[in-house]
Amino acid sequence: MSVKVNLEEQFARFFDTWSPKIIADLDDYQIKLTRLAGDFPWHTHGDADEMFFIVEGNLRLEFRDGVQTLGPGELIVIPKGVEHRPVANEGEVKVLLIEHKDVVNTGDGPVSAHTKAAERLS
Amino acid sequence: MSVKVNLEEQFARFFDTWSPKIIADLDDYQIKLTRLAGDFPWHTHGDADEMFFIVEGNLRLEFRDGVQTLGPGELIVIPKGVEHRPVANEGEVKVLLIEHKDVVNTGDGPVSAHTKAAERLS
Repeated sequence: MSVKVNLEEQFARFFDTWSPKIIADLDDYQIKLTRLAGDFPWHTHGDADEMFFIVEGNLRLEFRDGVQTLGPGELIVIPKGVEHRPVANEGEVKVLLIEHKDVVNTGDGPVSAHTKAAERLS
Repeated sequence: MSVKVNLEEQFARFFDTWSPKIIADLDDYQIKLTRLAGDFPWHTHGDADEMFFIVEGNLRLEFRDGVQTLGPGELIVIPKGVEHRPVANEGEVKVLLIEHKDVVNTGDGPVSAHTKAAERLS
């Protein structure tokens, strides 16, 4: 038997932002939770699509050719190779992420202070 | 730019149960919505993990060694090879599914009246 995961219970276990936490594995993919506040550098994941599902708050996703603003109950897949910048400028945003386990949060650019390996909430 | 998907808007576009609809692709995986009501046959996906995230309602997931009951905001990954049976016996359940594109809804058993290829909501 596998065991369910309650998103609110898991969000209550961490409070740092831009630091994804792994809550489950799906084949070679990871299901992660993250809190976002403020903005993040422009980046691209050359080899991997990335899904954002908004649990709480509003997230602005900037692309070079437009903007999408997502609220709770909305998701988006950012295709591989598409440059993007997440901006949480209306308060904190709680996000469920799904992406391949080898994805680095800051994408293909240089490692920076924003680069963080996802930790496992176990 | 990729475009967001609002789950409630997409659920309003179909009303059949046990018939997953593809709303987005993530590499070789599909993000699907489905409505569930009543029960479904026991089955196993030998080669693929499967994620259920509950959007609305309560879902009972039976395993050979126990039961998990999930409500809104809860998810579970059913590991490959683990026999399971979803039961929606407290009214309809709205579910977000993520699984590899080659997964068949009735698993590795014989094709039956329950077997349905996921349609694309486009």
